[in-house]
Amino acid sequence: MNPAPLSGLYAPSLSLVTDLYQLTMAYGYWKKGLQDREAVFHLYFRKPPFSGGYAVCAGLAYAADWLQNLGFSEDDITYLAGLKGSKGTPMFEQGFLDYLRDLKFTCDVDAIAEGTVVFANEPLVRVQGPLIQAQLVETALLTLINFQTLIATKTARIREAAGSDQVLEFGLRRAQGFDGGLSASRAAYLGGADATSNVLAGQRFGIPVKGTHAHSWVMSFEDEEEAFTAYAEAFPDDSVFLVDTYDTLEGVRHAIAVARQMRERGHELAGIRLDSGDLAYLSREARALLDEAGFPKTRIVASNDLDESLITSLKLQGARIDTWGVGTKLVTAYDQPALGGVYKLAALRHADDNGWDFTVKISEQLAKTSIPGILQVRRFETEKGQARADMLYNIAEPLPENLTIIDPLDPTRRRPVRSTTFRELLEPVFRQGKLIMTLPSLQESRERVQREINSLDPSIRRFLNPHTYPVGLEEGLNTFRTNLILEKRPQRPA
Amino acid sequence: MNPAPLSGLYAPSLSLVTDLYQLTMAYGYWKKGLQDREAVFHLYFRKPPFSGGYAVCAGLAYAADWLQNLGFSEDDITYLAGLKGSKGTPMFEQGFLDYLRDLKFTCDVDAIAEGTVVFANEPLVRVQGPLIQAQLVETALLTLINFQTLIATKTARIREAAGSDQVLEFGLRRAQGFDGGLSASRAAYLGGADATSNVLAGQRFGIPVKGTHAHSWVMSFEDEEEAFTAYAEAFPDDSVFLVDTYDTLEGVRHAIAVARQMRERGHELAGIRLDSGDLAYLSREARALLDEAGFPKTRIVASNDLDESLITSLKLQGARIDTWGVGTKLVTAYDQPALGGVYKLAALRHADDNGWDFTVKISEQLAKTSIPGILQVRRFETEKGQARADMLYNIAEPLPENLTIIDPLDPTRRRPVRSTTFRELLEPVFRQGKLIMTLPSLQESRERVQREINSLDPSIRRFLNPHTYPVGLEEGLNTFRTNLILEKRPQRPA
Repeated sequence: MNPAPLSGLYAPSLSLVTDLYQLTMAYGYWKKGLQDREAVFHLYFRKPPFSGGYAVCAGLAYAADWLQNLGFSEDDITYLAGLKGSKGTPMFEQGFLDYLRDLKFTCDVDAIAEGTVVFANEPLVRVQGPLIQAQLVETALLTLINFQTLIATKTARIREAAGSDQVLEFGLRRAQGFDGGLSASRAAYLGGADATSNVLAGQRFGIPVKGTHAHSWVMSFEDEEEAFTAYAEAFPDDSVFLVDTYDTLEGVRHAIAVARQMRERGHELAGIRLDSGDLAYLSREARALLDEAGFPKTRIVASNDLDESLITSLKLQGARIDTWGVGTKLVTAYDQPALGGVYKLAALRHADDNGWDFTVKISEQLAKTSIPGILQVRRFETEKGQARADMLYNIAEPLPENLTIIDPLDPTRRRPVRSTTFRELLEPVFRQGKLIMTLPSLQESRERVQREINSLDPSIRRFLNPHTYPVGLEEGLNTFRTNLILEKRPQRPA
Repeated sequence: MNPAPLSGLYAPSLSLVTDLYQLTMAYGYWKKGLQDREAVFHLYFRKPPFSGGYAVCAGLAYAADWLQNLGFSEDDITYLAGLKGSKGTPMFEQGFLDYLRDLKFTCDVDAIAEGTVVFANEPLVRVQGPLIQAQLVETALLTLINFQTLIATKTARIREAAGSDQVLEFGLRRAQGFDGGLSASRAAYLGGADATSNVLAGQRFGIPVKGTHAHSWVMSFEDEEEAFTAYAEAFPDDSVFLVDTYDTLEGVRHAIAVARQMRERGHELAGIRLDSGDLAYLSREARALLDEAGFPKTRIVASNDLDESLITSLKLQGARIDTWGVGTKLVTAYDQPALGGVYKLAALRHADDNGWDFTVKISEQLAKTSIPGILQVRRFETEKGQARADMLYNIAEPLPENLTIIDPLDPTRRRPVRSTTFRELLEPVFRQGKLIMTLPSLQESRERVQREINSLDPSIRRFLNPHTYPVGLEEGLNTFRTNLILEKRPQRPA
């Protein structure tokens, strides 16, 4: 796989893929001479999507590609030079524009590998470097990682519901434009889909492509049998007939009639597809008709606004479906179409010496209060590799010998750590602006997802009211954070 | 504005932005010698989004650009040549690949101008031309038009709720990747947003860009006053201070303290921004504090998962908000993240003579049964330009003198047409593959939206249970369609 999936798709400079406030802040820092103050930001989410128990990390390959190409082109600078404030004067001084023109990315980036299961408050990406740079990359990192993580997670859930059945993603037409569709197809494959209908995703990422025909194919012929026969002539061993253009069970009978003719010529009908109506009932009827006619191996593909809930329900109803085609509900993550990942400042070098100021964003809701420090995530595991608990800790402080983790939402929930088997989830990706990680292939990340999901207790994987996986702050970090909140929050009399 | 917004963003060939089944059908048609049979397809949706009364058409400029660049590159052909069927043999014959390599777009395309209000079942795009070509363009047209129409419609609703207040779109970080964000910003501006945070959208489309600072700006300084002061030094006349990093009302007091110092130097604080908490309460308190302190002109900007319902509710609660920042809920169209537009075959030339076969896709639900014919949409208006009713009719058949329109979902609802003022909504865009329409600028389309919305009765514009705008089939078309359904649907005994 090309580790730089965007290079071909985009024009050389996409540094303007950002919110204006990143540039106004950059200008402000530059004017104050703060541009090179070392800062640390974390990208994380506050709740797993879909009321689920976990998320599947994705988007790092895109993010790494974008970071590698960070830099402002002459066109970008010209555009920025033309921006005016309300008084009609230029928004930015020439000196700042010259600074941007020469800007090179020199940050350190650590991130959790694509395909890893992750939980609320865990930094998926940590950026450390000059304040302006670390701030400037916020929007693009969020855009790329929020969406792909959302889709990979959605697909992992659909995969969970489908069991070992085949899952096909065909949501391109309902995606947010071309690269919405392209990155959805990539994240869906990573998350567990077996193939996509999106040909560009096939070409760029090597994802298997699948597809048969539309209703219009059937409508282009005198009747269904003629249409199916014509399709079988083109794809004698790979035909899946869409049977619901006029009447589904009549369609199945026509498919069987053509399948008989195909068999006489030495070919087997690969499948039929149901795209409307009561899929539980129709799939059972279709299966019975196919079996009776001697086509027990002809697969039944179903589609029509499917998601993990519908797949689960159809299976409970005894639907006889071999392959699940999922589109709209997957690529839009219909029931929760945004992940809500955020990017927060967590540490800043002292102006005067070499120490750190750790910073916190307060909120009325504790869940929205950020975590200070330069964070690492340590995942404790059983010897068989089952995930037991995650600990967030500040790598700038020494760890005590006896570890205790504390629930950031309920400080009375504490767990001493007994496990000695662990891995550190954040791995070095960039050092001083240079990509040093060999990014895994999409295939490797896809395999990781299934290993990772299997490392979770079923209670965390279930859809309805999943158990909360334990993620805690290392005791020292928790104490530090509590004190910092108390210090920063105004104490108003009751 | 550049009428070809994608050219710069994408690599030369994006013809693989398609579902595989478009190519397998193309191959099937080619093998049957049907590639040049003339066909007509319509792109339409079956229900306005968000349980609303209308939609705002958008995406045509992107679609036109994509169609102009249709064609398979050598790389595309190489990829397709490598695709294999289940038996390991090539999916496509060389002759077909040669055909694709030479393929030029030669269709006629008619479409409804961007910014027009549209209703269920109305073709937004009609493609007429060789079957293979008209079929091949399905996925890309749906991808581009579904999403932008969805977002333009959402924004029109937000604009309706906001009245004459300023609306800023800042959803890039929650969009589906970079061009998800880019096309969302474009469609939002078209639909009525005043500005975007998305700098690339500013550069490419000339949309005004806005933005101030994040919580991290405040956290990068010793305290809020220092942070606000530093920001005001960079933007003395355009500062909007984000006041909720630690405590919102304390933040307002700090903003006022800095605003006083700014005034001494001849500058006025432009605004403050509230991004969390009870926006109704906090905005009233903030307004009172600002007014008391002598800053009645300092604007209050609010954000935090806003949409048209929340804006309406906040206004009812007497919130004192001047500018609404909308992000996630807008760019993902959170409450209905897909439009569900479809693309259906409606007519096919006879094999033997020059006449047409009009085609229909049957469904158990009448709402999902397609409309045959080569359709035009005629909008009848009052002399003052108020929209009264739309009529779908088949341009291949003569119109009777006295027109009657019939509700496609309830044939007992009939209206004779009295109005003689009308316009035909579908306009020629391509003729024989050549772009002949001068595409309006984004600004012109944006102005059209507001005219169009004003042409609708308030009962159709309201959010809750809007009145259904009358869209009917011309009587002859309705009769023809009914007969065709009866003919195609198997008559099963009860």
